[in-house]
Amino acid sequence: MANSNSGESATDRFVRVLETFTPTRTTQTATDIGRRAGLPSSTAHRIVGDLVAAGLLERDEDRRLRVGLKLWELTTRSSHALWLREAALPFMEEVQARIGEHTQLVVLEEDSALCVERLSGASAGENMTLIAGRLPLHASSSGLVLLAYAPQQFREQVLAAPLKRVGPETVTDPARLRRVLARIRQTGHVIAPGTVSAVSTGVAVPLRDRTGEVIAALSVILPRGVDPLPALEELKAASRAIARTLGTHSR
Amino acid sequence: MANSNSGESATDRFVRVLETFTPTRTTQTATDIGRRAGLPSSTAHRIVGDLVAAGLLERDEDRRLRVGLKLWELTTRSSHALWLREAALPFMEEVQARIGEHTQLVVLEEDSALCVERLSGASAGENMTLIAGRLPLHASSSGLVLLAYAPQQFREQVLAAPLKRVGPETVTDPARLRRVLARIRQTGHVIAPGTVSAVSTGVAVPLRDRTGEVIAALSVILPRGVDPLPALEELKAASRAIARTLGTHSR
Repeated sequence: MANSNSGESATDRFVRVLETFTPTRTTQTATDIGRRAGLPSSTAHRIVGDLVAAGLLERDEDRRLRVGLKLWELTTRSSHALWLREAALPFMEEVQARIGEHTQLVVLEEDSALCVERLSGASAGENMTLIAGRLPLHASSSGLVLLAYAPQQFREQVLAAPLKRVGPETVTDPARLRRVLARIRQTGHVIAPGTVSAVSTGVAVPLRDRTGEVIAALSVILPRGVDPLPALEELKAASRAIARTLGTHSR
Repeated sequence: MANSNSGESATDRFVRVLETFTPTRTTQTATDIGRRAGLPSSTAHRIVGDLVAAGLLERDEDRRLRVGLKLWELTTRSSHALWLREAALPFMEEVQARIGEHTQLVVLEEDSALCVERLSGASAGENMTLIAGRLPLHASSSGLVLLAYAPQQFREQVLAAPLKRVGPETVTDPARLRRVLARIRQTGHVIAPGTVSAVSTGVAVPLRDRTGEVIAALSVILPRGVDPLPALEELKAASRAIARTLGTHSR
């Protein structure tokens, strides 16, 4: 792609613009975008004009900019995340219907746990995870499962970095966390109360493809104090059923 | 954004690259992408390299290219489609649980019905709609609802264009279609057997925001011959409940 005078590619600038939109900031002015993306105002207005013309950004009724439905469509219709989600969804719905709490499909992306899908009944408890939202690997039940089965070198990198406390019972001591991860590999699950939030308990299991490789984690977020064993049983059954479905796909 | 010698912007080329990925073609080589996007091979390889470096495309285990998880994340986390979907999902889950068939949230995008969400039980019947997939407005139950409530000028444009037969009972006569749409506005729903496929019946209702404007359609796809009235009741109740939820959002 053509580069600007600064040597930065158009792709890099597009990513910087896109990164200024977040779950809590879904609309912005072009001036806001420029400031947050660190682009000169004239450059920001030109890029935004281009993106609106192509349908990648769109204007709402107040003329503020938001991510375009067309960009969502182009990205989603062929996405790998959607493929996994499609395979998992019918079984996640069963877990959600039986347990009645947030049921999540989470993958490892860069150094985080990325939520690909979340089903939440109308009466489900507190949950800090958003679809396409991230949580630290060491501080969420899904993240702990993904970390437990990650390549050892990657795991050691995460353990060597500062481990931020997120909930009152987040494990932030590397030696203790190493034992938690070993235990997950032994039992094939984690029950993690207070790791993300004081009022909830995460229950998570690995999701494997037909080669046995862990490709995602499946979790339920329960209100603290609820017996986690029924959720664990449901998750294990769903994980086995999804793995069988994945085995029949050619992708 | 910087333009190439051809005067086409980097954004336009990015869209052309992204459009080569479809629900049935989720991985490609750089050479395939170039051919399908109408780009010279060297240009395609350079753009693809840029997009991979930025995480917008990624390589699978066979080194084929696919839409990157990071692009899905950036697009989804702040998308308007997701916001509507989040509001609708708990109520869609109830419809799906009670009726046991595909339950869909569909919006008007350009000249098509774009499926934003689809819930499908493990035992649900045939369904040709994909998430982020499109159906013609005149040939799907959701599309008929969206068309019925669309601005009159837009509606007349659609009626004036050739109306393709999709299922055995797709209405392709403009005068008859105009009567179908008027009837939808009177009754607030459509029951459309054989419109998309001979073996299914679409049932759809409008979804309104707090101002009363129709912003989406909610539909259930039943196997042909199943009584549509229970699904219709569920959809009407869900639509009212979602409208109340939307009323409490500030966006």
